[in-house]
Amino acid sequence: MIILGLDPSLSSCGWGVIRAEGNRLTHVANGQVKTKPSAPMPERLAEIARAIDAILAEHRPVAAAAEEVFVNQNPASTLKLAQARGVVLMCMGRAGLAVGEYAPSLVKKAVVGTGGASKDQVHAMVKILLPGTKIAGEDASDALAVAITHAHHLATARRVG
Amino acid sequence: MIILGLDPSLSSCGWGVIRAEGNRLTHVANGQVKTKPSAPMPERLAEIARAIDAILAEHRPVAAAAEEVFVNQNPASTLKLAQARGVVLMCMGRAGLAVGEYAPSLVKKAVVGTGGASKDQVHAMVKILLPGTKIAGEDASDALAVAITHAHHLATARRVG
Repeated sequence: MIILGLDPSLSSCGWGVIRAEGNRLTHVANGQVKTKPSAPMPERLAEIARAIDAILAEHRPVAAAAEEVFVNQNPASTLKLAQARGVVLMCMGRAGLAVGEYAPSLVKKAVVGTGGASKDQVHAMVKILLPGTKIAGEDASDALAVAITHAHHLATARRVG
Repeated sequence: MIILGLDPSLSSCGWGVIRAEGNRLTHVANGQVKTKPSAPMPERLAEIARAIDAILAEHRPVAAAAEEVFVNQNPASTLKLAQARGVVLMCMGRAGLAVGEYAPSLVKKAVVGTGGASKDQVHAMVKILLPGTKIAGEDASDALAVAITHAHHLATARRVG
């Protein structure tokens, strides 16, 4: 089963594709979709849609998950993030994919063991869980962590179901 | 010049198309894209993208404008709105359209004369400015008001330029 994890963001949208076979997880690909801060918002969002569509076409995931968004101290940046997230979710919907949604603290707990883990700790743990993976950056590592969380969740759901 | 006005929303996204020739504005079409609250978010967002793409293909606007979003008392509903808005802006970006952005109070001021105007007042004024128009609902009337505001703004920019 190919799983796509996403860490939506306007300036650097992280993505990570893993393969889950039983309890075994292997890395497939990861990256970060960067958009120019100087470009108009509609262009940046269209760029994100194009990149996500290309990832879907290349890797054909059958499951997807994304980090949840919360309104933080900076409302303007939250709105930008939510707009980017809307585009990412739209691409999933158009591809007929359901999207698991996980709070960042839950992803950290699932991967590192504690909801308050740092980005570095997530990065290090993703490298241990997916040995030999070259990770494009912090956002890609967060996205792989989301994919891993979703894989665990789906495996548990299967066992319970 | 064909101008598309948008009042982005997840449950009922208003749109309105007008033609501006000099100072003369005429109505072309308006409507509201409704999505099922029970459907998953990615599906709802994909539905909005399909509808907006169809409007763009049918009416081929050369200018577009959308209401700005602000974080309000209900952060969860603001995030949903921002996600829908992201999809709408992405469609504009993909069509190569620049998008004028106007705060709701500015739209009301431009159309009714006061930034604190009610939805009813906006609706009534849009019917006066675009006589004979059958308006699909409050969201469509807001979208037409945005298109009218953008037409005024472009006309002023031309005069000044």
